[in-house]
Amino acid sequence: MNKTENQMLVIFGASGDLTARKLVPAIVSLAQDGYLPENFVVLGASRTPYSDGEFRKKVVLESKYLDEKMENGQEKFLAEFSDKLFYHELSDDQSSDYAPLKKRMESLNSDYGTDANYMFYLSTPPSAYGPISKNLYNQGLTEEDQGWRRLIVEKPFGYSLKSAKELNEKLHRYFKESQIFRIDHYLGKETVQNLLVTRFANSIFEPLWNRHYIHHVEITSAESGGIGKRGKYYDKSGALRDMFQSHLLQIVALIIMEPPLSADAEEIRNEKLKALKSLRIMTDPEVLRRDTIRAQYISATVDGKEVKGYRQEENVDPESKTETYAALKFYVDNWRWADVPFYVRTAKRMPTKVTEAVIHFKTPHHQIFKDSSMHSKDNKLIIRIQPDEGILIKFGVKVPGQGFKVERANLDFYYSSLTDSHVMEAYERLLLDAMQGDATLYARADEVEAAWAFVDPILKYWKDSNQNVYGYSAGAWGPKNADELLEGHHTWRNPGEQLADDPGFCVIS
Amino acid sequence: MNKTENQMLVIFGASGDLTARKLVPAIVSLAQDGYLPENFVVLGASRTPYSDGEFRKKVVLESKYLDEKMENGQEKFLAEFSDKLFYHELSDDQSSDYAPLKKRMESLNSDYGTDANYMFYLSTPPSAYGPISKNLYNQGLTEEDQGWRRLIVEKPFGYSLKSAKELNEKLHRYFKESQIFRIDHYLGKETVQNLLVTRFANSIFEPLWNRHYIHHVEITSAESGGIGKRGKYYDKSGALRDMFQSHLLQIVALIIMEPPLSADAEEIRNEKLKALKSLRIMTDPEVLRRDTIRAQYISATVDGKEVKGYRQEENVDPESKTETYAALKFYVDNWRWADVPFYVRTAKRMPTKVTEAVIHFKTPHHQIFKDSSMHSKDNKLIIRIQPDEGILIKFGVKVPGQGFKVERANLDFYYSSLTDSHVMEAYERLLLDAMQGDATLYARADEVEAAWAFVDPILKYWKDSNQNVYGYSAGAWGPKNADELLEGHHTWRNPGEQLADDPGFCVIS
Repeated sequence: MNKTENQMLVIFGASGDLTARKLVPAIVSLAQDGYLPENFVVLGASRTPYSDGEFRKKVVLESKYLDEKMENGQEKFLAEFSDKLFYHELSDDQSSDYAPLKKRMESLNSDYGTDANYMFYLSTPPSAYGPISKNLYNQGLTEEDQGWRRLIVEKPFGYSLKSAKELNEKLHRYFKESQIFRIDHYLGKETVQNLLVTRFANSIFEPLWNRHYIHHVEITSAESGGIGKRGKYYDKSGALRDMFQSHLLQIVALIIMEPPLSADAEEIRNEKLKALKSLRIMTDPEVLRRDTIRAQYISATVDGKEVKGYRQEENVDPESKTETYAALKFYVDNWRWADVPFYVRTAKRMPTKVTEAVIHFKTPHHQIFKDSSMHSKDNKLIIRIQPDEGILIKFGVKVPGQGFKVERANLDFYYSSLTDSHVMEAYERLLLDAMQGDATLYARADEVEAAWAFVDPILKYWKDSNQNVYGYSAGAWGPKNADELLEGHHTWRNPGEQLADDPGFCVIS
Repeated sequence: MNKTENQMLVIFGASGDLTARKLVPAIVSLAQDGYLPENFVVLGASRTPYSDGEFRKKVVLESKYLDEKMENGQEKFLAEFSDKLFYHELSDDQSSDYAPLKKRMESLNSDYGTDANYMFYLSTPPSAYGPISKNLYNQGLTEEDQGWRRLIVEKPFGYSLKSAKELNEKLHRYFKESQIFRIDHYLGKETVQNLLVTRFANSIFEPLWNRHYIHHVEITSAESGGIGKRGKYYDKSGALRDMFQSHLLQIVALIIMEPPLSADAEEIRNEKLKALKSLRIMTDPEVLRRDTIRAQYISATVDGKEVKGYRQEENVDPESKTETYAALKFYVDNWRWADVPFYVRTAKRMPTKVTEAVIHFKTPHHQIFKDSSMHSKDNKLIIRIQPDEGILIKFGVKVPGQGFKVERANLDFYYSSLTDSHVMEAYERLLLDAMQGDATLYARADEVEAAWAFVDPILKYWKDSNQNVYGYSAGAWGPKNADELLEGHHTWRNPGEQLADDPGFCVIS
């Protein structure tokens, strides 16, 4: 196990929801599993005037997100744990607030022996990243003269290629790239990381992992819920920014990347960058019209309940063109993947919550057995990222009886069968990695920019053109015409049930 | 479904055990499943003086092998079925007995409308094959001037290359090769046939199916029982003749063969022949000494019971050198398999009854993840022929947690999950194929001879040299020194349990 050095975690935006809901529970789990260093303190910083005690109550002692842990007889443990939590009132953009912050940090550092190793976690809107970094820099808090200094930032990392570049430039004025950890919780998922192991710790998959054997690749990331109370954020963002630019392109990168020299962070990230740069950027309006589909969910009855359409959701423009469904067909311009189409879709209000990548292998090139429906029995490798994490191979077997009738069967593996032990939550895992300085699962500046470079022209085309916004019934698998993307005999793999009386699709603007 | 023409099945050796135990139950199953043609009769022929009624009682109405069917309320069905069974007393080698046989057949043919299609099933010792064929020929019963005439013969087909050739020559004097069906019940097993489908109806296995990706191939055919009451036969035969020359070399052929042009019988048999001819024949005594192992089970306590050693079995020479265990290492001299070793073993008195083929893939050629025990986690494709018919892929997955620790997991498929319907017994299936004239699953003369050509020099070496006969405890996985065949870091895959106090092995002669 890697060593975790003594350190202080400084959380900006500590009064916000994410700190109580995700961050502190992750730290508590790390503490319970013995992953925290001997000397470790958390310093929350934000505008709300809390005392240390109030902060401790909010995020630990009276936190509804730790209810279960409290009930499990961990009260004493959590009480002791909360003694290591502190709070400092501060306005992010108020430079005069940072000298007192520094003083507070130095005092905690000397009291608790955190060896001047400071991790800054920015749980704030991206607009605050610049000011906070600058202020920390001005106080000398980014200098690694004593301990190390690291910065964790949350997505969305930028709103476009331009804004992502500006953000990176700003951060790079005050931090070296090696100090910056851009968190993408999808990369904290075991099944996503297992993609690398599946490909490179086995000798049977990689020989097949190219244009000679793969017909196309399909990725679906579906959520059954709507946008909930996030209308204000979501209506400015949309599915392409919210899911595709970050999570799904990271999965694409892991699927298409060349074998890295080693599993070291920089080697993997170098290959991921190369992979993202090999995506064919769509600029031709004709291609963009044909190979991109956007849609919004419309009101429907799901499980007997009336579900709002997107345009009726709270804080959403009633004439919004923001997509809650995005489907793309694209190509990868390199030696390995030439001419292999990739189909990726992501959406809200689907029939089920599922994320999976499907490698569709080609039909056997010579038909020995007479069977007119061979292509419907093509081999598939299905990587289930959630739920039912695992791997599934669809392959052909002989139907018992005379002759050689071929039926499709499953070779199945469930990740849950592998271990009874506690599997770390994505946040927990990623936080620990950053605490140990391992950036493997964090996106590097150039990766983020390469992803935006691919997404930018699509967003621009959608904004500027009259590209249709389709409607699909809430609870359906998106607009039916999205099947046209997959020309020919293939259709999207829709795991689970269909909506009984799905009208298909309509054009809503 | 293929059409089964009206026909008469003439069984020589009809009073023998096989007819009652295997043949008639297979025909009854075919009848129950509606596979028999409208007009169909069975004529048993052998020395025992039975009346039709006595024969019907023996093999159907009072047969202990049909007890279960009788209990299931099928009495009426079986009574009607038995009306189609007849018996004719005859001495195989008495030529004067064949004119009356012909007369009886012609009379049954005209009474029951079997269209002069005659299937001769020789359930006799191989020494009778010649005389019976000759006598049938002399009566004009092999001529296909009216209906078709077919001959089914049981293994062992020959005792050596020379005797197999002589037998083929004899049969070919009276029958065309296309009329001869040499039965190998292993080829009637669904999982054996599924080998072809696995390889050629999928696009993901065949690209890996060669020397570039496969390290070695291992085949085990183990029986837990001893030789029982078959001492007289077995002591002259041994494991190599009894199992390897026929069943196991057929499995080897299906694994190594090139893709056939189609699934037609002649195309498949052409490729199997080519495969068998590509086996490197061992002639160098040094190679034979090193790469072949023979052994006999010796007395041991298995499950608390004293089990006899082979030399103590009934009708076995107390100084017998006949092998009850044979293990071979050999190579296949062709473009696809050059330098890939094949390890095949078969034995009696093993810890369990199992037949499986294991394709061992090479270690990934570049180690991205640090793990010194990679080779023990190499990919394996395990084809379980019996029991638990199915396919298993051993592959590497990521152990949940930090870093990239690789663990071995299983992708599993059980044939039983595919169908609830009745899977035909091997005999039933093969008999139906022959009745329909489909020879795909029957061994052709040249195949049988190619198999003997490989086995002959080994048998000769064992007979003439002082090659050790090892002893292994009944209930153990053969002599431990057989592991030396698999040089290096691999060992035999021994599914199931080991004998607790296994002494390993000893030299017994």
